[in-house]
Amino acid sequence: MSAKPARIGIIGGGQLGRMFIENAARYGLEIHILEDDPHAPAAQLTHHFVEGSLKDPEAIRSLAAQCDVLTYEIEHIHADVLLELEAEGKTIIPSGRILKTIQDKGLQKSFYKANGIPTSDFKLVGSPSEWREAMLELGGERFAAKSRTGGYDGKGVFLTDLQSITIDPGIIPFEGPTMIEKFVECYKEIAVLVAVGQGGSTAVFPAVDMEFHPVSNLVTYLFTPADIDTSIEEEAQNIALKTVEALGGPGLFAIEFFLDHQKQLWVNEMAPRPHNSAHHSIEACYTSQFDQLLRVLMNWPLGSTDFHQAGIMINLTGPEVGSGDYYLEGQELALQTEGCYVHLYGKAQSKPHRKLGHITVTGPDIETAKQKAELIRDKVFIALR
Amino acid sequence: MSAKPARIGIIGGGQLGRMFIENAARYGLEIHILEDDPHAPAAQLTHHFVEGSLKDPEAIRSLAAQCDVLTYEIEHIHADVLLELEAEGKTIIPSGRILKTIQDKGLQKSFYKANGIPTSDFKLVGSPSEWREAMLELGGERFAAKSRTGGYDGKGVFLTDLQSITIDPGIIPFEGPTMIEKFVECYKEIAVLVAVGQGGSTAVFPAVDMEFHPVSNLVTYLFTPADIDTSIEEEAQNIALKTVEALGGPGLFAIEFFLDHQKQLWVNEMAPRPHNSAHHSIEACYTSQFDQLLRVLMNWPLGSTDFHQAGIMINLTGPEVGSGDYYLEGQELALQTEGCYVHLYGKAQSKPHRKLGHITVTGPDIETAKQKAELIRDKVFIALR
Repeated sequence: MSAKPARIGIIGGGQLGRMFIENAARYGLEIHILEDDPHAPAAQLTHHFVEGSLKDPEAIRSLAAQCDVLTYEIEHIHADVLLELEAEGKTIIPSGRILKTIQDKGLQKSFYKANGIPTSDFKLVGSPSEWREAMLELGGERFAAKSRTGGYDGKGVFLTDLQSITIDPGIIPFEGPTMIEKFVECYKEIAVLVAVGQGGSTAVFPAVDMEFHPVSNLVTYLFTPADIDTSIEEEAQNIALKTVEALGGPGLFAIEFFLDHQKQLWVNEMAPRPHNSAHHSIEACYTSQFDQLLRVLMNWPLGSTDFHQAGIMINLTGPEVGSGDYYLEGQELALQTEGCYVHLYGKAQSKPHRKLGHITVTGPDIETAKQKAELIRDKVFIALR
Repeated sequence: MSAKPARIGIIGGGQLGRMFIENAARYGLEIHILEDDPHAPAAQLTHHFVEGSLKDPEAIRSLAAQCDVLTYEIEHIHADVLLELEAEGKTIIPSGRILKTIQDKGLQKSFYKANGIPTSDFKLVGSPSEWREAMLELGGERFAAKSRTGGYDGKGVFLTDLQSITIDPGIIPFEGPTMIEKFVECYKEIAVLVAVGQGGSTAVFPAVDMEFHPVSNLVTYLFTPADIDTSIEEEAQNIALKTVEALGGPGLFAIEFFLDHQKQLWVNEMAPRPHNSAHHSIEACYTSQFDQLLRVLMNWPLGSTDFHQAGIMINLTGPEVGSGDYYLEGQELALQTEGCYVHLYGKAQSKPHRKLGHITVTGPDIETAKQKAELIRDKVFIALR
């Protein structure tokens, strides 16, 4: 150490920032957080907190002024100021240029098409009146419509079909620029995380199997190693590598895939940050996703992405009905289960489907981990007080 | 969560408090630290910092006033105020009563003798003039003299022999109440960590082998599983359990043993807190020592003490010569080694033998872990800038 430890700034103070700090703490670095809520999960553990909106360029500039390197833990931030700061010589990872491609689901899909990344066909529309024609042009019956900007955790996504839209266009739930894609009849959803170092080195994590909540569309359950053929895992890893190569800059990227019934892989979407699908890496992998991102930011060598334990992650989300004070029902059982790790993010209040924590269950193999996970699955959950 | 998360107070803001917070962070609790230096390792990560001396009863009372439960990460604190606070109904773990027994190496040894815990013979003396007679009464040639209070990390310990003291009593390095014990010709030093829950449940960790630095007397290298017969490990675990039973209260306790050439175990000393000999538990055990202490403090079920990986710990201490700014030489190599975890405590300056961090190396078995540790052992160390 010296008078000046490295200073890392994170735009966003949610659970991803918090878990980043939990790991970074063991290196004696200095972490700065920008968030509008001083009681946000990451704000509670940070060395320096900047209060301000993630969409306020001046707030982002204030954070940048006190840090050596900047990253973000959420996409919905002011991206243009990142480009300006980069032009002024600031290191921002991933680049604002990459964020702008990913922020807009229309640009993101166009990027996949332009780079030969397999993704379902799509059309960009400007208003609800154009939806039906776009669907007719695409062909087929079922579609996913996604608001081009601002969607998050399943919000801004609408699954529909040509017949429903034809009968009642009034069911369209949002206006404005929208990306409409052909719905992929999905056998499984899997995700692959890739880190790209500042010198261009890459590290690809093993694939994970994801199970989604039918209503909230959040990941509820996640396995690694994934229950897929090795050849499919390799293909997904290759596509993930091709994707980050095309992005052309350092960072940590989570690429989500649909695997259809013909065993064809389709990129659904990607995130330029740590991802819910890789929380198990904290306990199951030699290098967690948060440590891997830290290595990228610090320009340190990337770490092994192998797992030393099989891991299963269960999201802990707010009950569907009601808001307010909450607790972890069944916490005793979780704590009594060997290789079961409770994570609560320190959020003050529960809201329906809000991500409040997760549990990772590890075991020497996936079958043992599944048996443990089954024991706690329905008994450990967020309950309102 | 609710408006009131549990508030844990820690007297002492060193690396043990820091690593406690690193783990506790994942449960969304509130950690308060008392320390005289606002830049101390744990102060950097805490929610609430109380600036004050660990020997000032009023400072300890201030911390207690804002917390639900209190613990300490160092023995050299004002213990009487803990007794007072307990009498007033405060939960302090371990009890001030236990701390007072352990703080004074004379009382500690007397406690072992009174409870049939194997420990080498000793005499208590008041001044250097009494040393020689005590040695004559004990018999034998070699002795360890320990200042009854205030010793730490090998300070206040003097290894000597009857002949040297007879020739030149002036070599005695400290005055005041001293415990003189027969020196145990040691084949190995091992340590066993035990947690005692508030309801009296116990959890015993596997034994670790320790290797000490010949000059600083700090642990430099530590293995688990220990390279000792199962019967000896079981005996050490039984003695550790007997010891904490005799203490009669909750807490996390590290018991250090000498194993002599006749395979006899002798308790050397104990610590009522997380211990340097169990840092590997962070990455190698299902439940780390810090998580186990948290479970005790929160009155949660104790966790499995088993290891899922073999682990080796290497202490990172300040170079013998010089003080000042420092860095981790060879950090790249450490980061490139799979299952190698760097911990730096965020201390501002290096001093000779100061504990500045540690590295844990894990592997599927102890041989693999040793091979990795050998690769980095002499190449990764603290260097002055």
